[in-house]
Amino acid sequence: MPPRVKDDYYWMKRTLTLAKKAESIGEVPIGAILVKDGEIIGRGFNRRESLNDPTAHAETIAIRQASRKLDAWRLTGTILYVTLEPCPMCMGAIILARIDRVVFGCFDPKGGAAGSLYNLADDSRFNHRVKLTTGIMKKECSEILSAFFRNLRQKKKALNNKE
Amino acid sequence: MPPRVKDDYYWMKRTLTLAKKAESIGEVPIGAILVKDGEIIGRGFNRRESLNDPTAHAETIAIRQASRKLDAWRLTGTILYVTLEPCPMCMGAIILARIDRVVFGCFDPKGGAAGSLYNLADDSRFNHRVKLTTGIMKKECSEILSAFFRNLRQKKKALNNKE
Repeated sequence: MPPRVKDDYYWMKRTLTLAKKAESIGEVPIGAILVKDGEIIGRGFNRRESLNDPTAHAETIAIRQASRKLDAWRLTGTILYVTLEPCPMCMGAIILARIDRVVFGCFDPKGGAAGSLYNLADDSRFNHRVKLTTGIMKKECSEILSAFFRNLRQKKKALNNKE
Repeated sequence: MPPRVKDDYYWMKRTLTLAKKAESIGEVPIGAILVKDGEIIGRGFNRRESLNDPTAHAETIAIRQASRKLDAWRLTGTILYVTLEPCPMCMGAIILARIDRVVFGCFDPKGGAAGSLYNLADDSRFNHRVKLTTGIMKKECSEILSAFFRNLRQKKKALNNKE
């Protein structure tokens, strides 16, 4: 296994623990980590419901944290790890922040903008292009989401049966 | 002039004053206002440089402010006024926030995601569609941007001549 792939697994494993944090507070379990020179400079997990903020996706939270840390909006030389394929908002933010590479676990066929519905990462009309690595820990990243939505459906069903 | 168009001019005029605020602090002059039931619930102007935040576009600032004000991530029943066509990040945020309608002044042929490079507003694969009204005070919204970039070029030229 080449070192980069080994690294990708290492960071994705840590990103998954953030997705689990989201799950533990009832949020859709998605996590993101921004890495520069082998160091974490931004962390985020989906907090839309708890913050009541439609922009509070794992990726934008990690990006904004990294920008504060580096005191710079240009995050060149960084790699973003995220459990699910980014949506158009997050891919837009990734391009605006000049992030070098995005590594994600599973595709999002309903909303993904890095290959599924759109591929904003590789559009020559933008002034920045983003390298993509996909499918790292795909099964784990996908299963945590399926389990979350399965539980949600069961809870709703139980609630409906009680009424 | 039907009342809605008259309203659109009224709000775009106020949105332009926010673009001027951005200009006054050296930011690319773009402004945004979010309106619900004839009342402003969110205001923003581009603050990327001053906040060192790649996500600090006029639209996302206005959206996040409105979400805090209403304590809700769902901003249904709202209209977003913005001087320039939104980029992919901002159109993504607009869709996630379930904003009803977006009114913008001028198109952004290099980065717009509401008709120019993409049209995310009207993609049936998303779970929300956004109505668009374009060209309201187009000349004013465009001229403030041209003047800003003209000044920037002149300043750079003067600086280069000094060296």
